[in-house]
Amino acid sequence: MFSKILIANRGEIAVRIIRACREMGISTVAIYSEADKDALHVSLADEAYCVGPAQVGDSYLNMLNILTIAVSSGAQAIHPGYGLLSENAKFVSLCEKCNITFIGPSSQMIEDLGDKDKARKTMQKAGVPVTPGTEVIEDENEAKAAAGKIGYPILIKARSGGGGRGIRLVEKEEDFLNAFRSASSEAKSAFGDSGCYIEKFLKPVKHIEMQLLCDKHGNVLCLGERECSVQRKNQKLIEESPSPSITPEIRAKMMDAATKAAKAVNYNSVGTVEFLLDKDKNFYFMEMNTRLQVEHGVTEMVTGLDLVQWQIRVAAGCKLDKTQDQIFFHGHAIECRINAENPDKDFRPSCGKITKLHIPGGSFVRFDTAIYQDYIIPPFYDSMVGKVIVQGRTRDLAIRKMKMALSELSISGIDHNRNLQIEILSAKEFIDGSYTTDFIEEFEKRRKK
Amino acid sequence: MFSKILIANRGEIAVRIIRACREMGISTVAIYSEADKDALHVSLADEAYCVGPAQVGDSYLNMLNILTIAVSSGAQAIHPGYGLLSENAKFVSLCEKCNITFIGPSSQMIEDLGDKDKARKTMQKAGVPVTPGTEVIEDENEAKAAAGKIGYPILIKARSGGGGRGIRLVEKEEDFLNAFRSASSEAKSAFGDSGCYIEKFLKPVKHIEMQLLCDKHGNVLCLGERECSVQRKNQKLIEESPSPSITPEIRAKMMDAATKAAKAVNYNSVGTVEFLLDKDKNFYFMEMNTRLQVEHGVTEMVTGLDLVQWQIRVAAGCKLDKTQDQIFFHGHAIECRINAENPDKDFRPSCGKITKLHIPGGSFVRFDTAIYQDYIIPPFYDSMVGKVIVQGRTRDLAIRKMKMALSELSISGIDHNRNLQIEILSAKEFIDGSYTTDFIEEFEKRRKK
Repeated sequence: MFSKILIANRGEIAVRIIRACREMGISTVAIYSEADKDALHVSLADEAYCVGPAQVGDSYLNMLNILTIAVSSGAQAIHPGYGLLSENAKFVSLCEKCNITFIGPSSQMIEDLGDKDKARKTMQKAGVPVTPGTEVIEDENEAKAAAGKIGYPILIKARSGGGGRGIRLVEKEEDFLNAFRSASSEAKSAFGDSGCYIEKFLKPVKHIEMQLLCDKHGNVLCLGERECSVQRKNQKLIEESPSPSITPEIRAKMMDAATKAAKAVNYNSVGTVEFLLDKDKNFYFMEMNTRLQVEHGVTEMVTGLDLVQWQIRVAAGCKLDKTQDQIFFHGHAIECRINAENPDKDFRPSCGKITKLHIPGGSFVRFDTAIYQDYIIPPFYDSMVGKVIVQGRTRDLAIRKMKMALSELSISGIDHNRNLQIEILSAKEFIDGSYTTDFIEEFEKRRKK
Repeated sequence: MFSKILIANRGEIAVRIIRACREMGISTVAIYSEADKDALHVSLADEAYCVGPAQVGDSYLNMLNILTIAVSSGAQAIHPGYGLLSENAKFVSLCEKCNITFIGPSSQMIEDLGDKDKARKTMQKAGVPVTPGTEVIEDENEAKAAAGKIGYPILIKARSGGGGRGIRLVEKEEDFLNAFRSASSEAKSAFGDSGCYIEKFLKPVKHIEMQLLCDKHGNVLCLGERECSVQRKNQKLIEESPSPSITPEIRAKMMDAATKAAKAVNYNSVGTVEFLLDKDKNFYFMEMNTRLQVEHGVTEMVTGLDLVQWQIRVAAGCKLDKTQDQIFFHGHAIECRINAENPDKDFRPSCGKITKLHIPGGSFVRFDTAIYQDYIIPPFYDSMVGKVIVQGRTRDLAIRKMKMALSELSISGIDHNRNLQIEILSAKEFIDGSYTTDFIEEFEKRRKK
């Protein structure tokens, strides 16, 4: 097992990882930007080093500074958390060159699963259902014919796309050629690769993901799903497990597909397979995330497993100590993300001093955060300041527990979305579980009236 | 199910019960003393009524005021929490007369299990091992002969005893007669009943209790043990489950004995059977507590069950939805009680304003409290201000998690025992699990040096 790990992240996830390390008897090295010298993760770690100025590009994404600190502090491994460098194949490859274990899959695996066209083909070959669509097509008329066959609406997607770039939604055939040209040229200039493929555009759709935990000895565990369809502008707001929309039969098929996906690439860390579920309850592989997710705590609540500790263990070469039939799911868990933003002022981010803080507690209630009384939230980073996670015997009890916990949570000095979350939990579509990824847009329209 | 419950308690347990009710959709009525108008349980409840002056005898033990509020607010049931009126047969009988459900067993059962001589006989008859000893003996010479047969050291105990009165430890035969006379006369004047019996005095000994959950349909669940041997002056400081000292065979026998105890009295609520475990791993029935225990959260962590919600459900006549073979135990849980007292000044109680508060969070960490930033702890009540409860995959991981959680807990403005708890967790006897009820006395002697 590692004796020292560098945590290349900040905020609640850095705190989460430091706690896991401490519990495992592993020393921790924190890094921080100049704006983060009073951050909680800095005070909790055994050692902490400033890695650069406030902007993430200069600090938390500064690969060479981070690796220099890792090497000079004697860290044997780096935990990247989520976001930042967590799926950066170049960084992982630099870690490999420095003989530092990156806690996650290899640079090659991250690259392969990041190439959308390649990942689609791999999954198709492994028997994982993918959205109806094509391979990369160079000829625009050939592409148009293929789109007609699939049936509109369709999506044009760049093979090397990311961050929403190189994607076009086409509703009608007459718009196809312009969209294809524009997507290709955007992809060419953004990623140096004009290659595009076509996918059926599914709507309304649910976003359901399967959690995987795999070791380096070929053992694969699928830890069930999280439904993440409560999203605003592609940012998840609420996640829950189990999904209120899938039957045990669909769950079994989805878990089987996720397991096949992991085995097809010899996956060997925690990871998540994201699926889209259409209104006829067909599901399709969307992508595989090769990192810990923000919402991993939902799965921890229903399975009783500590995913971060296991992620570290498998990175160190440990074998999983359970088989799939020893995984049991208990009750229902929900997570609400608390963001420092003002929902009544177009979600304008908020920052400043936390003047009062009261954190909900009690049975089966968890609050993951890096804020504390008198902490000053800097303006440079992600607006998420905490995650309330609860578990109840049934979905109904979990929703009520979450409402109780949210009503107890009190953060003064900044704007935040606590009240909005309580409203969302009370919306008809959330209560009956029918919500799709369009829900929040509809909900906001109603709310404005 | 009840639609409204009055909570006849204060502090963290009142908060715990209010949360459970809210999650079950039950309205809550809080009561509070004049000193508690700013207490957290008052602000969390749907309704709150002042029940009298600061002293508990005038407020939280004021049966008629409490029942008047219950009746006039339309509460259908009263949850007594622990301590205060929770095992007061007279109060329960008054509730019965007012047609208000007392959330706990009947007044008759509380009385029967409170009579130590009677409880011993009932348990013996049911095949539950009790400490070697006698029935009540009136004649002092007959008593002396019986004591000789049992073997010194022995305890003389008053049948109607309580709060440590009417108990004498006798180490040598020549001291017997004086001790017997003094115990009898103390019992006579304190309880109006001079009847005494003799028990073998076991030492060193461990205190291990079994949690029961029973319904009104004859179903009994035993939810495993909690080891509570870390005690200071009979006050528990740390509790854990499972006990580090019992084998699966002893656990099975102890669970069987606790189940027999429950069945012998047709028990129908949550309850706890307390056992003493001697150095030869023999265990003996000590008493049965007919209420929720402070340390119930330890069992909630390892079983995943919400004991307060189930206590309310079974009081309303609901059936348990699980059988004993569906109860699974997960990992290891530990609770540390946080008391507002100064361990370096002879545990002098502390009160005053909480100027800073930082509460530990994260995976499998729970903090039950009723304090908040700027809250002023009144001087009238129990010194316990919070309970840190954690769960880990193994005992070792749980201990480290607890240390991490305690090191994160920060309470300024009052004295408290957080650092002492960290020291206890680091003591050899705690780490190897060999600690008995004498441990803290020894530990304090070492600490003073």
